[in-house]
Amino acid sequence: MNFQSYSLIEPCNSQCSFCFLQFTDVLCAENLFLGVSKSEIGEIIKTVHHQVRSFSRGDILMHEHDDYTSLLFLLHGKVSTQIMGVEGQILIMEQLHAPATLVPAALFASENKVFVTIVADEDCKVLILPRESMLQIIAKDERIMENFLKILSNRVQFLTKKLKLMCFENLRTKFLKHILELKDIQKSSTITLQHTQQELSEIFGVARPSLTRVIRELHNEGLIHAKGKTITILDVK
Amino acid sequence: MNFQSYSLIEPCNSQCSFCFLQFTDVLCAENLFLGVSKSEIGEIIKTVHHQVRSFSRGDILMHEHDDYTSLLFLLHGKVSTQIMGVEGQILIMEQLHAPATLVPAALFASENKVFVTIVADEDCKVLILPRESMLQIIAKDERIMENFLKILSNRVQFLTKKLKLMCFENLRTKFLKHILELKDIQKSSTITLQHTQQELSEIFGVARPSLTRVIRELHNEGLIHAKGKTITILDVK
Repeated sequence: MNFQSYSLIEPCNSQCSFCFLQFTDVLCAENLFLGVSKSEIGEIIKTVHHQVRSFSRGDILMHEHDDYTSLLFLLHGKVSTQIMGVEGQILIMEQLHAPATLVPAALFASENKVFVTIVADEDCKVLILPRESMLQIIAKDERIMENFLKILSNRVQFLTKKLKLMCFENLRTKFLKHILELKDIQKSSTITLQHTQQELSEIFGVARPSLTRVIRELHNEGLIHAKGKTITILDVK
Repeated sequence: MNFQSYSLIEPCNSQCSFCFLQFTDVLCAENLFLGVSKSEIGEIIKTVHHQVRSFSRGDILMHEHDDYTSLLFLLHGKVSTQIMGVEGQILIMEQLHAPATLVPAALFASENKVFVTIVADEDCKVLILPRESMLQIIAKDERIMENFLKILSNRVQFLTKKLKLMCFENLRTKFLKHILELKDIQKSSTITLQHTQQELSEIFGVARPSLTRVIRELHNEGLIHAKGKTITILDVK
């Protein structure tokens, strides 16, 4: 993949209807376009430089520390954003499902850099809008400007909360919060972990044996019933 | 202090020139107004609801978890932003000197909440702009809109880097990075710490004796010469 070429995006012209009109449904549900109709989205994007790209499972969409002057919208698929320690430890920041705006901060920060790595967890389709296109769109439509401010602001709050979690909460609380989130998402008291214990320990920034111990403790205390990746939440509120 | 009343700010009318025109110099250097002249800033703020407030050293400007629908600009003085753990541990996120925009994310996020506590480290003067005033200003002036996007985006990057530091780096690396930053700021190999060891340990999220031990180790290894708050960097790159 050639990341530098993101900044050389040409208007799609004749291929336009092929490249993105099939995705206006998806974009409609995306936070940036909340309150904007499908046909309006079509009109807006048609007038600015843009591009749709496909990525395969395992591809890296963005590399930490790369220069970056385009915004990426995940139209289809699932990605993980990760940060890496000097010794190769990985912290998975979050998993994002389409539709989603990826690393919105790189575009307007003083340094146009990405500080996370984004990996395709599934085959993905991505709409790429260069900085200039985004500036045109935002300047023209107040709804989109407010939506973009909201996306950035939510990101700041998400990171502040995450920082608090990482600094202050112990592994037990982190794991309980994680399974209660899964309970909400999977709408069942019996949930399936989406990660191996190795991956989860990387998400929490701890050693794997520590996580195994915490899960065993919770199981023995009768708060959960754990069997492989299946966990039944018995007595956690 | 009555925080709720921030949202009931009236235009200053006749007192206007008293309340903020003396601060246009300061605002000129503030990131939000970069590229905007003093007289323009005066015109812009005169037309929207705003207020100037004073806080004394030790006052809390914003409480973690409070609802918040105004933006605060630090016009004079120095504040710390802190997050607190359930057991009362404090992590100092950063110290901000005037001029500075405080918690810009609260204004446009889905939840209008503040996730940090802001404490006055010195007597402070603060310009308060309600959300509606900010919306008017941003919609009217593209320079200010771009500046605000930059402030939010830089905030996202700052927090991402901070998260990485907290998750992955040990105390020794944190302390070395800190003194190398001070070396750049103070433009000397002999630097003066801006915090007590107690404050610094809170910034790094560790116990104070751990920090003392790390400083002693670095001193004994000949990498630094430490005497009270004065540290000479001997052999650190």
